[in-house]
Amino acid sequence: MSTKNAFYAQSGGVTSVINASACGVIETARQHPDKIGTVFAGRNGIIGALTEELIDTANESADDIAGLKNTPSGAFGSCRFKLKSLEENRREYERLIEVFKAHNIGYFFYNGGGDSADTCYKVSQLSEKMGYPVQAVHIPKTVDNDLPITDNCPGFGSVAKYIAVSALEASFDVRSMAKTSTKVFVLEVMGRHAGWIAAAGGLISDYDIPVLVLFPEVDFDQSGFIAAVKAKVENHGFCTIVVSEGAQYADGTFLAEQGARDSFGHAQLGGVAPVVANLIKQELGYKFHWAVADYLQRAARHLASASDVEQAYALGKAGVEMALAGQNAIMPTIDRVSNSPYEWKIGSAPLSEVANVEKMMPADFITEDGFGISDACREYLYPLISGESYPDYDDRGMPKYVVLKNQLIDQKLETFEL
Amino acid sequence: MSTKNAFYAQSGGVTSVINASACGVIETARQHPDKIGTVFAGRNGIIGALTEELIDTANESADDIAGLKNTPSGAFGSCRFKLKSLEENRREYERLIEVFKAHNIGYFFYNGGGDSADTCYKVSQLSEKMGYPVQAVHIPKTVDNDLPITDNCPGFGSVAKYIAVSALEASFDVRSMAKTSTKVFVLEVMGRHAGWIAAAGGLISDYDIPVLVLFPEVDFDQSGFIAAVKAKVENHGFCTIVVSEGAQYADGTFLAEQGARDSFGHAQLGGVAPVVANLIKQELGYKFHWAVADYLQRAARHLASASDVEQAYALGKAGVEMALAGQNAIMPTIDRVSNSPYEWKIGSAPLSEVANVEKMMPADFITEDGFGISDACREYLYPLISGESYPDYDDRGMPKYVVLKNQLIDQKLETFEL
Repeated sequence: MSTKNAFYAQSGGVTSVINASACGVIETARQHPDKIGTVFAGRNGIIGALTEELIDTANESADDIAGLKNTPSGAFGSCRFKLKSLEENRREYERLIEVFKAHNIGYFFYNGGGDSADTCYKVSQLSEKMGYPVQAVHIPKTVDNDLPITDNCPGFGSVAKYIAVSALEASFDVRSMAKTSTKVFVLEVMGRHAGWIAAAGGLISDYDIPVLVLFPEVDFDQSGFIAAVKAKVENHGFCTIVVSEGAQYADGTFLAEQGARDSFGHAQLGGVAPVVANLIKQELGYKFHWAVADYLQRAARHLASASDVEQAYALGKAGVEMALAGQNAIMPTIDRVSNSPYEWKIGSAPLSEVANVEKMMPADFITEDGFGISDACREYLYPLISGESYPDYDDRGMPKYVVLKNQLIDQKLETFEL
Repeated sequence: MSTKNAFYAQSGGVTSVINASACGVIETARQHPDKIGTVFAGRNGIIGALTEELIDTANESADDIAGLKNTPSGAFGSCRFKLKSLEENRREYERLIEVFKAHNIGYFFYNGGGDSADTCYKVSQLSEKMGYPVQAVHIPKTVDNDLPITDNCPGFGSVAKYIAVSALEASFDVRSMAKTSTKVFVLEVMGRHAGWIAAAGGLISDYDIPVLVLFPEVDFDQSGFIAAVKAKVENHGFCTIVVSEGAQYADGTFLAEQGARDSFGHAQLGGVAPVVANLIKQELGYKFHWAVADYLQRAARHLASASDVEQAYALGKAGVEMALAGQNAIMPTIDRVSNSPYEWKIGSAPLSEVANVEKMMPADFITEDGFGISDACREYLYPLISGESYPDYDDRGMPKYVVLKNQLIDQKLETFEL
């Protein structure tokens, strides 16, 4: 096997641990200089491959690459850019393969969610047809936790830990204040289609907190919800509500949509938390506070789950090892062996079975009343938030996050218009 | 000196370290059984004294009291309940002193902000006049950092650390996405009158992040702000905005007030972040995300500043020691000795000089353009966020926060109507 270069790119919304996967890819590749030459990274994800903006990771020190393991966000830049279907825009796929050919790239490591798995699969297929076969490996990443076959997706465990801990802390605060002040706290979390992240907020009922979860999977029933809030406040003195940004009515309208308008009367984007809080105020008169975690949740490397960081790294490493073993059109997966003690191992899935399949939360993970999580869900979630993995901090009290040099290599091809 | 009991109460909005002060009070009192009998805590703050709902902290184990040091919120409950002036409601003050007398309470430790310093002072004065002199000591606490004389207030350093770290992490995220997606991130932080917390967000410019801060102290100039956002995005590709909930126009109108309305046309409470984000969208067309940290920031014990935790404990301890030394109507303070290395010592201030005085941010802590912090501000802030003080976590990945028994003692007096 001759030496080929590798191309690595980050795709879609970033997470607090996607750089740990990058670290796993680059450190493992560096251990095999006889087979893998340089690892190039796409500047701003796959766009960097299309525009031939390739970052030479060989210029980054071993310390900086190791530091990626503790640095949130996408160190090379990511993008929201979905390649069209082969029929609609074959030109983009062909360009990718031209760029790979021009830079002797034989390995393609694509780190992302469902869309990137699909792209990865197509590149593998087309490269063979074009007579320049590229080994394409998809490294899973998504806070949405919606990829099939793998037990869970890197990025999710850390968001889940952040939401569970933050909801617990804020609930302690509300409990302190409820006698004369705030009685209801509403926390908005990510998850437009699936309630995985909201489910993590449900864990705090194990810590004596009266909590109601609003999932996108459960049609919002206003009167049932108001009655549930009333019962919690009457029994416990306060109530915490964790609401998924995708919470919706039976007709598919998002709660957030019918909510706030700005001073010009335009519908305001985002913000289901204030809608829910104001609804409670209106119906029950309780004083409320609300928070919207937004990017804070997926960037919170300071509170990452140790198992998540470890798995993100392991999947990057496994991706390179699978490529070195001659595998193609594949995604390394997390296979759960046992819950207690938590054990897992690396498995794999063919990309043909990953692309365009969305894994929803099992119906039996939600309690019958629709506002809580089941024991099965708890057993699934706790291992994913277990362990703490702290970044180092500087003397001033700030985390030591790495910023790479990100030097581009010389271009060889003509300019490509996106 | 005969043995007297002590009364401790938590006041106003709670913090992630107010329980560390409670720990300092109780552990220190327990070391002096010859002078201090039982420490009673007010259930829900000063209300517990008025209604004679006194928690017997002697029933709490040494381990649980030690655990308070790492537990956010107010472990005995707090309240937003300001005693009226002596002239308006002398009856409340007299009741306090009756309750103290009934339970042989000779020490009053009140843990709060400006209002509670005032109450504490009045109780000291009136108790003497009523022939039952109580030694009243105020333990400072407020995330608003607005008490005079003391260099800083426990609770603030941890919020500042949380906001600085969270703003940094979210900015890394936005930088990753800016090529094709989010270009502006708006983070709303606490601070209705003073920009101390917002200032902490300004620290991230030391970490190569283009950041603009909107302080309550600086009149909001829409065109100047929009021009500044445009310049940041054009030069850096993205921009982070940290906005204080109290940001306002020159006429004193809060930005949040003229903002969103709900579907019924009612003004929506809170939420300056979406107002600022939508303004930018409207004027510049940039894609945005926004977050509202709300209670998450002041409850975030998981990311507390070590110096803050240490000072909160030390002030509780010092309060007891001052009382034992016969002092009265006093507040222990933090006196800064040096910035680098950071050194501080305990000082004190007479309550007559603390009550009803609000410390604002010095004008020279804000840059001339009004959107950033000066070097003097940085030198002030960094020591306060220095060091990490993590709680322990259980095997499931959740922090071990203490919940006390909070058993009430028998009442001796007639019921008191609030």
